[in-house]
Amino acid sequence: MDEPALRQLLDDVRSGALSADEAVRRLRRLPFADLGFARLDHHRTLRQGLPEAVYGPGKTPAQCAEVVAELLAEPSGSPVLLTRADPGQVEAALARNPSGVQAAAGVVVWRPAPPRPGRVLVITAGTADLPVAEECTAVLAAFGFAPQLIPDCGVAGVHRLLATVDELADADVVVVVAGMEGALASLVGGITPAPVVAVPTSVGYGAGLQGVTALLAMLASCAAGLTVVGIDNGFGAACAVARMLA
Amino acid sequence: MDEPALRQLLDDVRSGALSADEAVRRLRRLPFADLGFARLDHHRTLRQGLPEAVYGPGKTPAQCAEVVAELLAEPSGSPVLLTRADPGQVEAALARNPSGVQAAAGVVVWRPAPPRPGRVLVITAGTADLPVAEECTAVLAAFGFAPQLIPDCGVAGVHRLLATVDELADADVVVVVAGMEGALASLVGGITPAPVVAVPTSVGYGAGLQGVTALLAMLASCAAGLTVVGIDNGFGAACAVARMLA
Amino acid sequence: MDEPALRQLLDDVRSGALSADEAVRRLRRLPFADLGFARLDHHRTLRQGLPEAVYGPGKTPAQCAEVVAELLAEPSGSPVLLTRADPGQVEAALARNPSGVQAAAGVVVWRPAPPRPGRVLVITAGTADLPVAEECTAVLAAFGFAPQLIPDCGVAGVHRLLATVDELADADVVVVVAGMEGALASLVGGITPAPVVAVPTSVGYGAGLQGVTALLAMLASCAAGLTVVGIDNGFGAACAVARMLA
Amino acid sequence: MDEPALRQLLDDVRSGALSADEAVRRLRRLPFADLGFARLDHHRTLRQGLPEAVYGPGKTPAQCAEVVAELLAEPSGSPVLLTRADPGQVEAALARNPSGVQAAAGVVVWRPAPPRPGRVLVITAGTADLPVAEECTAVLAAFGFAPQLIPDCGVAGVHRLLATVDELADADVVVVVAGMEGALASLVGGITPAPVVAVPTSVGYGAGLQGVTALLAMLASCAAGLTVVGIDNGFGAACAVARMLA
Amino acid sequence: MDEPALRQLLDDVRSGALSADEAVRRLRRLPFADLGFARLDHHRTLRQGLPEAVYGPGKTPAQCAEVVAELLAEPSGSPVLLTRADPGQVEAALARNPSGVQAAAGVVVWRPAPPRPGRVLVITAGTADLPVAEECTAVLAAFGFAPQLIPDCGVAGVHRLLATVDELADADVVVVVAGMEGALASLVGGITPAPVVAVPTSVGYGAGLQGVTALLAMLASCAAGLTVVGIDNGFGAACAVARMLA
Amino acid sequence: MDEPALRQLLDDVRSGALSADEAVRRLRRLPFADLGFARLDHHRTLRQGLPEAVYGPGKTPAQCAEVVAELLAEPSGSPVLLTRADPGQVEAALARNPSGVQAAAGVVVWRPAPPRPGRVLVITAGTADLPVAEECTAVLAAFGFAPQLIPDCGVAGVHRLLATVDELADADVVVVVAGMEGALASLVGGITPAPVVAVPTSVGYGAGLQGVTALLAMLASCAAGLTVVGIDNGFGAACAVARMLA
Amino acid sequence: MDEPALRQLLDDVRSGALSADEAVRRLRRLPFADLGFARLDHHRTLRQGLPEAVYGPGKTPAQCAEVVAELLAEPSGSPVLLTRADPGQVEAALARNPSGVQAAAGVVVWRPAPPRPGRVLVITAGTADLPVAEECTAVLAAFGFAPQLIPDCGVAGVHRLLATVDELADADVVVVVAGMEGALASLVGGITPAPVVAVPTSVGYGAGLQGVTALLAMLASCAAGLTVVGIDNGFGAACAVARMLA
Amino acid sequence: MDEPALRQLLDDVRSGALSADEAVRRLRRLPFADLGFARLDHHRTLRQGLPEAVYGPGKTPAQCAEVVAELLAEPSGSPVLLTRADPGQVEAALARNPSGVQAAAGVVVWRPAPPRPGRVLVITAGTADLPVAEECTAVLAAFGFAPQLIPDCGVAGVHRLLATVDELADADVVVVVAGMEGALASLVGGITPAPVVAVPTSVGYGAGLQGVTALLAMLASCAAGLTVVGIDNGFGAACAVARMLA
Repeated sequence: MDEPALRQLLDDVRSGALSADEAVRRLRRLPFADLGFARLDHHRTLRQGLPEAVYGPGKTPAQCAEVVAELLAEPSGSPVLLTRADPGQVEAALARNPSGVQAAAGVVVWRPAPPRPGRVLVITAGTADLPVAEECTAVLAAFGFAPQLIPDCGVAGVHRLLATVDELADADVVVVVAGMEGALASLVGGITPAPVVAVPTSVGYGAGLQGVTALLAMLASCAAGLTVVGIDNGFGAACAVARMLA
Repeated sequence: MDEPALRQLLDDVRSGALSADEAVRRLRRLPFADLGFARLDHHRTLRQGLPEAVYGPGKTPAQCAEVVAELLAEPSGSPVLLTRADPGQVEAALARNPSGVQAAAGVVVWRPAPPRPGRVLVITAGTADLPVAEECTAVLAAFGFAPQLIPDCGVAGVHRLLATVDELADADVVVVVAGMEGALASLVGGITPAPVVAVPTSVGYGAGLQGVTALLAMLASCAAGLTVVGIDNGFGAACAVARMLA
Repeated sequence: MDEPALRQLLDDVRSGALSADEAVRRLRRLPFADLGFARLDHHRTLRQGLPEAVYGPGKTPAQCAEVVAELLAEPSGSPVLLTRADPGQVEAALARNPSGVQAAAGVVVWRPAPPRPGRVLVITAGTADLPVAEECTAVLAAFGFAPQLIPDCGVAGVHRLLATVDELADADVVVVVAGMEGALASLVGGITPAPVVAVPTSVGYGAGLQGVTALLAMLASCAAGLTVVGIDNGFGAACAVARMLA
Repeated sequence: MDEPALRQLLDDVRSGALSADEAVRRLRRLPFADLGFARLDHHRTLRQGLPEAVYGPGKTPAQCAEVVAELLAEPSGSPVLLTRADPGQVEAALARNPSGVQAAAGVVVWRPAPPRPGRVLVITAGTADLPVAEECTAVLAAFGFAPQLIPDCGVAGVHRLLATVDELADADVVVVVAGMEGALASLVGGITPAPVVAVPTSVGYGAGLQGVTALLAMLASCAAGLTVVGIDNGFGAACAVARMLA
Repeated sequence: MDEPALRQLLDDVRSGALSADEAVRRLRRLPFADLGFARLDHHRTLRQGLPEAVYGPGKTPAQCAEVVAELLAEPSGSPVLLTRADPGQVEAALARNPSGVQAAAGVVVWRPAPPRPGRVLVITAGTADLPVAEECTAVLAAFGFAPQLIPDCGVAGVHRLLATVDELADADVVVVVAGMEGALASLVGGITPAPVVAVPTSVGYGAGLQGVTALLAMLASCAAGLTVVGIDNGFGAACAVARMLA
Repeated sequence: MDEPALRQLLDDVRSGALSADEAVRRLRRLPFADLGFARLDHHRTLRQGLPEAVYGPGKTPAQCAEVVAELLAEPSGSPVLLTRADPGQVEAALARNPSGVQAAAGVVVWRPAPPRPGRVLVITAGTADLPVAEECTAVLAAFGFAPQLIPDCGVAGVHRLLATVDELADADVVVVVAGMEGALASLVGGITPAPVVAVPTSVGYGAGLQGVTALLAMLASCAAGLTVVGIDNGFGAACAVARMLA
Repeated sequence: MDEPALRQLLDDVRSGALSADEAVRRLRRLPFADLGFARLDHHRTLRQGLPEAVYGPGKTPAQCAEVVAELLAEPSGSPVLLTRADPGQVEAALARNPSGVQAAAGVVVWRPAPPRPGRVLVITAGTADLPVAEECTAVLAAFGFAPQLIPDCGVAGVHRLLATVDELADADVVVVVAGMEGALASLVGGITPAPVVAVPTSVGYGAGLQGVTALLAMLASCAAGLTVVGIDNGFGAACAVARMLA
Repeated sequence: MDEPALRQLLDDVRSGALSADEAVRRLRRLPFADLGFARLDHHRTLRQGLPEAVYGPGKTPAQCAEVVAELLAEPSGSPVLLTRADPGQVEAALARNPSGVQAAAGVVVWRPAPPRPGRVLVITAGTADLPVAEECTAVLAAFGFAPQLIPDCGVAGVHRLLATVDELADADVVVVVAGMEGALASLVGGITPAPVVAVPTSVGYGAGLQGVTALLAMLASCAAGLTVVGIDNGFGAACAVARMLA
């Protein structure tokens, strides 16, 4: 039941063409989705400025290009992101929607949001964690943030982390990207009072279990109040930051 | 917005006290839940005859008794079940709601449904699987079914299963309750054309991994079209059967 | 011991050429399989209309083609399916048995069954779940069903699911295909009174554990009466549906 | 090197009793911890109002009582919490420090913080999740927040959640406490633009794997930007909220 | 259809009271189980001397006593075993069936088999593995074997094992019972040419994972031709030995 | 200390050139390995007729060829096997040692043992299990056995297994090769009194967990006395058979 | 063959009562263990000062007491330890062997070794790790070391660890005892050049997985050259230290 | 605050340009890292002679080459290592830094340390473990050690290990590299009093679980005082040895 139909129903009530009983009956049978969609759209409006994200895996390059095009056709002006895209998907999406920019490996951004306040620090334990961190910073930038990326602060050389103590003190949110044993998250959590979003990565030797070790370690951290996202999920961490700084 | 409020709104439209525009605006802002609840109630009506189940663990005996009492106060006449209840919960619930009957260990039934057609066969691999099977048959009986329980058909003595080949051929649904390696489900699935609901149990030695082995085995079964519920979940199996025979 | 031999034995008893003792002895030694096979054939007859399925992995293209040919040579007229076939297997099977049709990626169908009643709804959480859903619908179509496929109803946008509430209310069976956290199955199970067959898929980030997370979540669902098949097992889900609607 | 010693050193430099070279040498040898502790104290000051938490397990009742007493002896006025305490620990701690109040099972609070702004919504899937949720709300209250607790919104009855859609829209942070399959977190994440802290609980049947299933499901959620804490870690969730609303 | 009924059928054929056609029809409809049971009984006969085992867990003491009594009522004279029985089950079973003897913790034996040839060596890694080893030797003794038990040969003191090198050379079968890392099985497998049945036990520290570590280690052994039974399954090992020495 | 040295020592004792004290001292210092090696060689002699097996993975083709050549140079006449070899390893080994024969995929045999008695039955659940079964039969043939291979007896079609009931009754050892849920092992174990060596394979869908499900199921089997080897370990199963029939 | 027998053999050779050939034959048949034991005793001598440890679990109190008594009867003077003993075992062992001292929960020491050099630092992350750390220090003390125990240096408060930087620099070996996420080991490994023995403990919330998380984290540590012992294995850590400082 | 700034501050104090109060204030605000870095550098000095290691995975060949070049530009003269490098990384690093030598697969060494004392024994269970062992020996050689590598001592042929009993007795440290069930570590630990560093490898069949089985087995070893590093972590083992022999 779209708006014209609803208005017609009310007109029919007014004109007496429809009894109140029947109108109540019809209105109560309104499916969830019709009104509900409107309500959720209202919510969506509240989120204006957040990207629509197209997850690449499992889609053909043509599908990627088409979904991006549809999203860009919406007048909302929200950012549009393609994530976890392979080179063919990136190429197809950019060929059809040439205004985009590849912001990181597998990440393409269209219509980035205007700059927003919020000091976001993204720290990695090692250089091998950089691809995940860069997915995170690329998405944050699409949201309008200007994150600061500090790589290679692994706890094996704790002095590197301690050198960032001022940035940690000033940050509004800290994203910690770490594989292996993921200890950096605990250490950062003990130093900064800011929210910490920990991203375990699949970096490391056999006992790292493809990121499961870092994931478990972050969840079991002795530093209270850490929160964790899924393994290698730089995109999710950026979205968590955006929720926190909305 | 309940029905009187909705009727008032329509009356105000009819009388001109409310403009159509304003009425549309208000209606579109109706929260999901108000109308939605009605719709879902409609669904609930479709399910008449199914039990309302109160899950015991984590509730005090008094809470169990009270929730049961509230459900019995509804005029729907649906069966009410208390499941996984410890002796104290059973006692408290029956003391306050004395019309109930303990149908199996941890299962109490109030207002059982009238008899329904449907041949349901519940087969167990061993006697140690009986508590789970009895939870299942007790819930099925509360639904109005008259399930046939055939215990101790484990594949280590395949002749016991083969002796039930006629019952298997005639069943509308077969529930297989098995721990250890859970092979009985595969065997039954290869013999009967009926739907098979497999219930892994936590029965067995160390390598049974508290039911995980049976669970995995049932999911990986070479017999096509088996479906599986959670470990020791006789209640869930009964509900699955009820969905199939609705 | 086939039928002529059995008849001869009885004739010999009648004629006195064989003592009753000896006949009893011979009959009691009848191997399981000889009579048993007949009995199971009888069951097989009950299943007429269900496909014979050839599972591709581990077979050479030539073997695939040959097994399909043998099955098609049977006069039963049952559908014949090739599943999980790689392109070489598909090509070889179709070259030798040209009446088949590729119904989905890796699925070829010969002699599909005539149309059967039964409203089957196949819902996916995301587009990446489509290959599994399409395996399911292709097999369902080979069985004679006309399943309705509704993709992309993931719970992150619950309005999409709520828009299908009427289809959910009318379905005889609902198949839910979902990866990541598999929450769609719980949600659907809470809305529809129909049987729900949940298919976990290996879609998703690291913590999805190749489908194990969705599998566990579906098994642990708070919606009572869900049943689950193995990871990515669209074929198994279709067979489960066929058992339920037989 | 405490402050008097540092001042003496500087006085000696001024008086010429100590050469600049020697002073540099001594200062450069200052152990991390001495100055560092000061810096971290500065950070601690930033966190004023946050509780000092004493984790009960592994301590004797007397140790619990003593640590609480020491913390209360600090003039900072910060709240002091005892968590996961057994009855003996609670009794001992309150006997020695009688100004405390038991705020939830196993949680005792001394010197709660004054009221702070911030709308925090704590939603549970079932009643069995309440102990974890109450640990969370008790700690939030000790921080000065006035969280709203909405129990029993599990996705099996999605209408219950939809009835809270306005609260979800208004919340500054939402904590979702859910066991079994943990699907509630995904659903909430799809409705609210606020930060969502998901707390998996060990509630549920066998396949819930003591909370691991809910944990994995929350991490693998299709709703972008969820963050997760450890199993049953209501305390951690409260600390995460406090970080976000600092 | 038992033997008298079968003989009657044949008599009716002979007398002409039953047509051959009808007789064939009836015989072909003979359920599997009727003839099958006979065949399997034949197999059972082959196994004379092996115990009937009643698995205690999940049975009431009265049930244990009754099942044992029924088995003893069979004239076969086979040994009867009660395994994994708690003290109450042992007491009840012996009270009703006083001819039994408790042969190990949780193991009661009635009608042990007469002595059989076969040198069986049961070696344990530590004293803590003795309960599992004793379950094994008690069952072996019930079978009629006279196993030799050599405890405490763990590889940390390899000289203890080497002192048994002659026994290892002469054994017909070796059972290795070991927890922790289970290395003893590999070592024994490298020394003896006899069949080795490895029994992992749940003995050991945290990383022993309740026997899973020993289990995996035994399965992954570099000593070719080891075979493994389930964790703590001394009963299963004894049965495996009996199969090998039948 | 080799034999001449030992004799010299004794001669020196006899001649008085060496005191008894010194001789005892020297003899007590004899390293393990010197005498020990001799003792173990004696064991090796007992194993004459068993193959020396060269495990391919991790060796270069040239290394494979060389080790085989060295083993063939020993006059013992034992069979020599190359296992798990890739095509390059097979080619190199056969080029240098042309008397070998490729007996299965990845298995090459030189100097097979003369025929030995022993009825060995190798049963597979599906055609996809054949590579593992063929590794087993190839190794058994190298040992001198003439195993009978019966493929495709999966429990989903129990009549296929029942057709082999006579072979199962007559076998000295049965090897069951099965992936997916591995139920075939339990079924066979319930029918045959012979030793059963169960080989889990990595065949199957996602929930088969690369053979772990079948492995666990076989270990947790309700059929007493099964023994299990590692996943896909057809070689190990053959060695276990050889130990049993030695 | 003990020493008198060996001497007799040599005397017989000298006297001519035994031929050299026969003596060689007899000596070559000496079982491994007889001479071997001697060699290992020689090794044992090298280890003088190390305790003989009796592992309590699985032994009766009387057995514990007896084994300790036997060890004390040996004139070697080595320390004797009882570990993981329950109160009954402790009491029985001390009653029979009253010279012992209970050195930590579950640890009793007899005949402690004289003081040995070596600076051993034992650091714990939290107070709940103390029981494991105290098992370690008690065993180290029995070895003759004077370990320094620094509790409560968890990384959530990194300043506490930094305050120990001098002790870390001076230590010969550092034992890190930590549960939860075990990050302390990485941090210590990055600061000290000394060997680090990391002991994961089962301390912590659900995601700590009873110590598995800490274990994996320590193994996957980004700090090179850490070594790890089993979960809660303070005894093993002490033994590792003793090996390093021998 | 670097040294000149610090000296200026002190000069200002001396000259009266800066009050002592202000100087104290400024000094107390010194960030951790500034002074801390110096302290850690001091530690680094203590570690002179240890290699700087560049971990290849996740870096481009150019990045590898550049980091190596930077490290070589430091005048410390420490060894520089590139580890786990693929051929492209090796080539690029050597092209730019031609003084290096490829010491093992994936390992390149520049400026190896001068010879150091210390007898290090590296033992492998099989030839397939050699790549990990060679990574270890290459790194040990870069440290200045001259490790002895003894391959192929797997416990299936215990005589091979016993032949090395003298080397084991003399070693300062023993590194055991073993896959499959990892039993060699336990055996070695029972023979030698030296520190044992156990390296599990991912060598072996399915149940080896890519090294997890060996890892668990080594951690659960019955030989007291073993220490373990991560799976396939030959580099880590070498670093552990260097810590022990520093």
